[in-house]
Amino acid sequence: MGKLLRVNTKERTFGFEEVPKAYEGLGGRALTSKMILDEVPATCHALGKANKLIFSPGLLTGSPAANSGRLSAGAKSPLTGGIKESNSGGYAAQKLAKLGITALILEDKPAEDDFSIIVINNDGVEIFPAGDLVKKGNYEVMETLWQKYGKNVAVISIGQAGEQCLKGASMNQADLNGRPGRAHGRGGLGAVMGSKKIKAIVVDDKGAPKIEVKDKEAFKAANKRWVDMLRNHPVSGEGLPSYGTAVLVNLVNEAGAFPTKNFRSGRFDHAQDISGEKMSELIEQRGGVVSEGCHPGCVIKCSNVYHDKDGKVLTTGFEYETIWAFGAHTTIKDLDDIAMLDRLCDDFGLDTIEMGVTIGIAMEGGMIPWGDGKAAIDLLSKVGEYTSEGKIIGSGAVFTGDALGVDRVPVVKKQSLPAYDPRSCKGQGVTYATTPMGADHTAGYGVTANILDVGGTIDPCKKEGNIELSQNLQIATAAIDAAGLCLFIAFAILDDEDGVPTIVDMLNARYGLSLTPDDVVALGKSTLNDEKEFNRRAGFTKVDDQLPEMFNETFPPHNTTWDFTLDELSKTLSF
Amino acid sequence: MGKLLRVNTKERTFGFEEVPKAYEGLGGRALTSKMILDEVPATCHALGKANKLIFSPGLLTGSPAANSGRLSAGAKSPLTGGIKESNSGGYAAQKLAKLGITALILEDKPAEDDFSIIVINNDGVEIFPAGDLVKKGNYEVMETLWQKYGKNVAVISIGQAGEQCLKGASMNQADLNGRPGRAHGRGGLGAVMGSKKIKAIVVDDKGAPKIEVKDKEAFKAANKRWVDMLRNHPVSGEGLPSYGTAVLVNLVNEAGAFPTKNFRSGRFDHAQDISGEKMSELIEQRGGVVSEGCHPGCVIKCSNVYHDKDGKVLTTGFEYETIWAFGAHTTIKDLDDIAMLDRLCDDFGLDTIEMGVTIGIAMEGGMIPWGDGKAAIDLLSKVGEYTSEGKIIGSGAVFTGDALGVDRVPVVKKQSLPAYDPRSCKGQGVTYATTPMGADHTAGYGVTANILDVGGTIDPCKKEGNIELSQNLQIATAAIDAAGLCLFIAFAILDDEDGVPTIVDMLNARYGLSLTPDDVVALGKSTLNDEKEFNRRAGFTKVDDQLPEMFNETFPPHNTTWDFTLDELSKTLSF
Repeated sequence: MGKLLRVNTKERTFGFEEVPKAYEGLGGRALTSKMILDEVPATCHALGKANKLIFSPGLLTGSPAANSGRLSAGAKSPLTGGIKESNSGGYAAQKLAKLGITALILEDKPAEDDFSIIVINNDGVEIFPAGDLVKKGNYEVMETLWQKYGKNVAVISIGQAGEQCLKGASMNQADLNGRPGRAHGRGGLGAVMGSKKIKAIVVDDKGAPKIEVKDKEAFKAANKRWVDMLRNHPVSGEGLPSYGTAVLVNLVNEAGAFPTKNFRSGRFDHAQDISGEKMSELIEQRGGVVSEGCHPGCVIKCSNVYHDKDGKVLTTGFEYETIWAFGAHTTIKDLDDIAMLDRLCDDFGLDTIEMGVTIGIAMEGGMIPWGDGKAAIDLLSKVGEYTSEGKIIGSGAVFTGDALGVDRVPVVKKQSLPAYDPRSCKGQGVTYATTPMGADHTAGYGVTANILDVGGTIDPCKKEGNIELSQNLQIATAAIDAAGLCLFIAFAILDDEDGVPTIVDMLNARYGLSLTPDDVVALGKSTLNDEKEFNRRAGFTKVDDQLPEMFNETFPPHNTTWDFTLDELSKTLSF
Repeated sequence: MGKLLRVNTKERTFGFEEVPKAYEGLGGRALTSKMILDEVPATCHALGKANKLIFSPGLLTGSPAANSGRLSAGAKSPLTGGIKESNSGGYAAQKLAKLGITALILEDKPAEDDFSIIVINNDGVEIFPAGDLVKKGNYEVMETLWQKYGKNVAVISIGQAGEQCLKGASMNQADLNGRPGRAHGRGGLGAVMGSKKIKAIVVDDKGAPKIEVKDKEAFKAANKRWVDMLRNHPVSGEGLPSYGTAVLVNLVNEAGAFPTKNFRSGRFDHAQDISGEKMSELIEQRGGVVSEGCHPGCVIKCSNVYHDKDGKVLTTGFEYETIWAFGAHTTIKDLDDIAMLDRLCDDFGLDTIEMGVTIGIAMEGGMIPWGDGKAAIDLLSKVGEYTSEGKIIGSGAVFTGDALGVDRVPVVKKQSLPAYDPRSCKGQGVTYATTPMGADHTAGYGVTANILDVGGTIDPCKKEGNIELSQNLQIATAAIDAAGLCLFIAFAILDDEDGVPTIVDMLNARYGLSLTPDDVVALGKSTLNDEKEFNRRAGFTKVDDQLPEMFNETFPPHNTTWDFTLDELSKTLSF
C-alpha cells in the first residue's frame, strides 16, 4: 500500500508515514471519513487549527479501471458543521495514486495571512509563497501553474471565495484543458483550504512508476466487461454523452419534480430554453465540445465546453444541477446568463448548487428581482470583489437568508437542496434528510428508481419503498466513493447483475484479495457509520435528519407534501 | 387571575381568553417558557409564522413590591435557535399587569412588508399602520408615540435592526424619560418582532383598576422588610446607586477576570478610564443623572443619564456589560465613544453585549483596527443604513466571524459571552455553558460568590464548588424572573436568610396563597426543565453545553484554562 503525506501548514513542513493498521484497506471517502472521525475533534471550529483537510484517491484510482479517477476530499464542513466528503474528477486523484500517496493531510493553520502553494512530485514536496496568485481566480491560477509546471500536472486550487473562508467555497481542479471546470463543490471545503492558507496544490507524477496490479489478466478481463457495461447502458452510454447531465432538465421537469422559484412548483415554463437538448445544440452551433471526460479513462464523458455567442469558451463542465440552480430555481431562463454564473463560480471557487440556491434566496429577500440574470451576475461578481455583499452571498443560502430575514430556505444541515423536489421525488428527499453530508443528491441518488426507472421503479410521490431505496443507495454510494468510481456507473450496476461483481473482481485483481460483494456493502455501511458517529459527536440529533418546514407546503403539479416523520426517518436509517 | 391577549399579526385581529389551567399560577419567565414549549414547534424557523413572541409581567409585577417591574419576553431565538427569555425594566410590565393581561402573545406573520403598531388600553386593542415610523430609530419612535399618547404610556419598539430581522436585534422599552435606554437585549427577539411586522406596542393603563392584593396588611409589612433589605445591602444600597453597574469595572479588572482584546487577558490597562467611578464623575460634571430606576418602584436605581461634553444627553442606562463589550473587549478606551456606541444600539435596537463582542470580532478579522472608537462608530452606524456591512454586524458575533473567517469567537449556543472571563470566574463560566439561554451572565450570576463575596466565597479560578454555585443560582434566577423581580435583589437575598421568605410572604399576600420557599425553588426548576426540554426538541445536546475551544488557551494574569468536561457539566445540570 501507499503512504500518508502529512503537511503542517503552520510550520510549512511535511512528512511521509506508513499507512497505520487502522486505515489499511481504505481509500477515497472510506479513508477520509475514518480519518476525520479519528483525528478531528468533532466540536472544533471548522476553520480552526484542529480541523484537517484530507485528500484520498479511491481504491481503484490510478489503475486502468474505467471511470475510477475520482478524488475524495474530507474535513469538518464549515457549511454544515458536520463531516464532509466531496469528490471530484480532474487529474489529481490518479497522479496522487501513482505517487503512492494514499492520503494527503493538511494540518494546523498559520497565524499570519500568507498563502502558500504545495507542489508534490516524485522527488518529494515543496511549499512556497503563492506570491502574485493571491486574490486571483482559478482560471488565472491554473493557467499560470500549467505554464510553470507543464500541462501534465494536476492542480487543486481555491479562488477568492476560499481565500475569504466563505462557507460556499469550493476547491477546484484543473480539467483536461487546464480550466477549473471540476470542483470539490459542496460543504465549503474551499474555506478549510483557505483557513490553512493553501492557495493551490500541484501534483506532478512524472517519473512515478505505474500502479501495481497484482493479477493483470483478471483485471483486464474485468475492466473489459466493465467498459462494455457502461457503454451499453442507455443513460451512461447514450443520454449523458449526448446531452451531458442536463439531459435531466426535460426528464425531471416532465416528472413534475423540477423545483421552480424557490421550490414553489415542479414545472418551469421555460425548461425547454435551458434543457440539455438546447445546450447541446448551442454547443454544436458555436464550436464547443459536447462530450468530454472529467478525468483520463472516463468512458461516459458527460462533461463539455460551452462557448459564448462569439465562439469563445464561456464555461466548462456545465451541469444539470448548476443549470437548475441558477435557472428554474431563480427563474432565469437565458442559458448564456446561467453559463456566465457557472463561470464565475468556477473562477471564484464556489459551489454552483449553493450559489444558485443563494441567488434565489437573495431574490426571495428582495435584493434583486426574480429571473434577472444580469442582476444575478452582478451580485455574484461581488464575491470576487471582497465586499460585504459578496461575503454574504458567498456564505450560502442559510447565511443569506439570515441576513435578509427570509424564512423559506431549502436546506438540510444548512446545505442547499439540489435539483429534485423532495415532495415529488421522495427517494431523493429521504437522502437529503438523512445523509450525514447535508442535502446532497449524490449521496443516494433516488432519482434512479423514482424517475429514470433504473434499478426498478418506485413511485416518487408516495412514501412506500423510498426509505429503503435511499438507504440502499446511500450504502452503495459510500462504497462507490471509496473505490474512486464516478457515481454515474451506478446506472449500469443497478440494472446489471454483473455490475457489483465486476467491481469486486477489479478490486481483487488490483490488490490480490478475495473480497465478496458483501465486503463492499460492509465497507459502505462502515463508512456511513463513521460519518454518523462524527456528526453525533458534533451535536447532531435526529432533528437534523429532517427537511425544513417549508416542505409542508403543497407542491404542484402533483400536490404532494413532505410526509415522513422524524421517527420514520431515524429508525430506519441506522446501518 | 388575568387574561391572555392573543394578537394575530397576519389577520391584524386580537382576542382575550381565560388563562387555561396549564398556565395557572405562572408569570414572567415561568409562563413565557412554558407557553413556548407548549405552543411553538421547536424545529420551526425562528422568523417563521409558527414562532410566537410572548410578553408576560412577573407574578409580583404591578403590586407595590419594590423592584418588581420586570417584563419577560419569550420566543424561539433567531440567534441561538433555542428558547429565549429576555426581561427588561420600563413601564410596560406594570401597565400590562394593571390591565389584567397575564400574557400578550404575538402570533403568525403577515405576507407583505407593512409594519403595524399595536395600542393596548383599558378599552381594548387597536392595530394600525406604522406609517412614518417605519425605518425610524427607537429615539424618534418613542418620542413620537409619547407625543401622541402622553407621557404615561409604555412603549416597546424595534429600530432598524429589528425591522431587518437581524439576529442581534433587541426590543427596547421607553425608560422613565421616554428614551430607549431599557432593552430586551439578548437573543435577537427584536428580529422576531420584526418578522411579525410589529414596529411598536403602546400600553396605556389609564382607567385600569389597581392590582388586587388579597392581604394588604401582610403585603405592606413584607414589602417594608423587603425595601429595608435592599437598601441595607452594600451592593444594592450603595455600590449600584453610586456608580451604576459600572462599579464592576474596577472590581472585575482587579480580580483578573475582565476579558480584554477578545478574551486574551483578564486585565485592561485602561480600565480606570472606563470605570464606574470615572463615569459617575463625568456624569456629575456634565449635569447628567447618576442614579435612577429602570421602572417605578425601584429602590436600587442603578440606571443613569450620561451627557456629552456639551451637556446634552448622549445615552441612558449606560451599563457595565456595555462598557466592557465596547471597551476592554475591543480595547476602545474613550468613554464618550463607548457611550455613542451604546446610543446607536439603543436607537437601532441592538443588544449591546452582542454588538460589542461583534465589533471585537470585526477587529479580529481586520475589518477595522483594534481600539479605534471612531471606526467602530462608523461600522455600527451601517446597521441603520440597511447596507450589507450593517447586516453582517447587526447579525452578531458568530455571523460576523463566519463572514470574516475568524475562528476565535467567544459564544455559547451562538450567543456572545458577557463581561467575565469563564476561566477566571468559573461559576460564571458554568452558567454560560449550561444555561438554556446561551452565554448569559444574568442566568446564574456566579460573580456573587466568585468575586463579590456575596452568598459566600468560592474560588473563581478552581473548579470546586462552581458547578453547584451556578446550578443553585440558575434555579433562583428562574424563580426571580418568574416573580418579575430585578436580578439585583439577589445580592440581598443571598446574604439575608429572610430574603426568600420575604418574597414568599409577598406572593402569598398578593394572591392569598400559602406557598413555601420550596415551592419557589420548584418553580425555578420546572421553568429550567421546560427550557431544556424545548432545546432538546430543537436538537440541542450536551455538546451545546460547553465553551468553544478558544477557552483552552491559558488566560493571564492567573494563567487559568477552561477545564470542565462535557460529562461534568451535563451530569450535574439536570434539575
